[in-house]
Amino acid sequence: MLHILYIIAITAEAMTAALSAGRRDMDWVGVCIIAWVTALGGGTVRNVLFGHYPMSWVEHPEYLVITAVAALLAAFIASIMTKLKKLFLYLDALGLVVFTIIGCQVAQEIHLPYLIVLFSGMITGCAGGVLRDVLCNEVPFLFRKEIYASAAIVTGAVYIGVEHFKGSEMLATISAAVVGLTLRLLSIRFEWHMPKFVYRDEWH
Amino acid sequence: MLHILYIIAITAEAMTAALSAGRRDMDWVGVCIIAWVTALGGGTVRNVLFGHYPMSWVEHPEYLVITAVAALLAAFIASIMTKLKKLFLYLDALGLVVFTIIGCQVAQEIHLPYLIVLFSGMITGCAGGVLRDVLCNEVPFLFRKEIYASAAIVTGAVYIGVEHFKGSEMLATISAAVVGLTLRLLSIRFEWHMPKFVYRDEWH
Amino acid sequence: MLHILYIIAITAEAMTAALSAGRRDMDWVGVCIIAWVTALGGGTVRNVLFGHYPMSWVEHPEYLVITAVAALLAAFIASIMTKLKKLFLYLDALGLVVFTIIGCQVAQEIHLPYLIVLFSGMITGCAGGVLRDVLCNEVPFLFRKEIYASAAIVTGAVYIGVEHFKGSEMLATISAAVVGLTLRLLSIRFEWHMPKFVYRDEWH
Repeated sequence: MLHILYIIAITAEAMTAALSAGRRDMDWVGVCIIAWVTALGGGTVRNVLFGHYPMSWVEHPEYLVITAVAALLAAFIASIMTKLKKLFLYLDALGLVVFTIIGCQVAQEIHLPYLIVLFSGMITGCAGGVLRDVLCNEVPFLFRKEIYASAAIVTGAVYIGVEHFKGSEMLATISAAVVGLTLRLLSIRFEWHMPKFVYRDEWH
Repeated sequence: MLHILYIIAITAEAMTAALSAGRRDMDWVGVCIIAWVTALGGGTVRNVLFGHYPMSWVEHPEYLVITAVAALLAAFIASIMTKLKKLFLYLDALGLVVFTIIGCQVAQEIHLPYLIVLFSGMITGCAGGVLRDVLCNEVPFLFRKEIYASAAIVTGAVYIGVEHFKGSEMLATISAAVVGLTLRLLSIRFEWHMPKFVYRDEWH
Repeated sequence: MLHILYIIAITAEAMTAALSAGRRDMDWVGVCIIAWVTALGGGTVRNVLFGHYPMSWVEHPEYLVITAVAALLAAFIASIMTKLKKLFLYLDALGLVVFTIIGCQVAQEIHLPYLIVLFSGMITGCAGGVLRDVLCNEVPFLFRKEIYASAAIVTGAVYIGVEHFKGSEMLATISAAVVGLTLRLLSIRFEWHMPKFVYRDEWH
């Protein structure tokens, strides 16, 4: 079940990433690379940080194909995607939550402490988008707008809490998904965002 | 033979990278770091992604010396390099092809599937230039201009195809080098580039 | 002793990093991530390059807590920090020197050649600041200004030299710290910087 949601999520992430590439006038390789980095980068960064090999896309090279095809398709149907903006925002929220939960599970399997499990969830959920923005030469979107990384943290915290007190991975996954998705969708709907820290005094 | 071409390639990559550093007014350490990242970054990123240790430059620290000396030399003879622009474009094409072939070979030695071998070649050929542009705060050049990453993919595909059907690494290397270099040089000469995906509708 | 200095250093680095995040209007998660990347990124990049697992912050998750708390505190007392500008510049210099020495020690423990030990020190001292600037969408500060990476190299060279000729890690640490700190503080005081390589001819 989580696996099916994962495939849907990387497909959707690849498609929206393609639009980011299009904003920077990239060619087809650029579109594919931005899609790969966005959809698969979170788990890749997590695995690099924990020395956890092999990467999922090395074991399942079809992930590279799925995301590349999805991204190139998105470039062709960009005008349709613009109309389906809402749908893709929802799918991106789904991706954030699914990636975060998988990130927590992977860290738990290799017996890392709770705080690192939470961190692993956040990294898995967010690092792909950060890498995408770095490659597109922008300040990462999720450091600044809406409840995004915060939603990943809440998702991870619910997962860990339920798993710890109820002992059921299934229940933890469902609870975390419901809470995380609800929080993220509400924050999109009502344009919630976290308070920003604005500092202007230069002293370098 | 491939080893000699590799040394020539990292030297040339380091020298052109120094000019990128000069466009951003970097000091001597910045010049060296940009040179290292450009010349050795592709193989390093590949090794990190596959958990393939140690890095070539840890086993051969002289690579760090060669590239640093080349980069600092380039800073001194920048005006001469500008006149030799064509030569360095050709050497950069050589580097792309050599790095790509080596990337394919490394992935084959650790028995990765064909698609990942191709991916490994592309990463090894291209990631150095991407890291250079990220550190120079630019949208990566090769996502946007000319047939660059595409040439790496063609080079890798020829290598894998010939190696698979003829069983000779030597023949595969030569074929891939000839096809890749020809494609890259023609694309420089006639300013070929891949179609770009241009998208302007903001919806974040 | 070095451990206590390390804790002071990551705390100070996290606090100044928070101000960089504030210049880019980041929210609390952005502030924490920039702080983590700056304070813990150097050692993390080093460990990734050498395949040296686990990360220090996986073994000591409290480092993530300390740096996050320090960064959020800094966001609250930003105006006080501006007044203590000098103090934080000194603490940053301390961090550079401490990180560099630790980087040399780690590389020595895994028996890497001298040149790589020096490189490891420089990476550990500098990579955090480079990642911070990349995430803040700036050309890395230390490639361009003052004697910063150069001070890391001198620190590492003194450490390796004294350790080699005197055989005492303690003496090497103290010598390297004194020389590195003195050089860095003098360069802040007198605004020393390395000659820059400025190149303007475009030829891409």
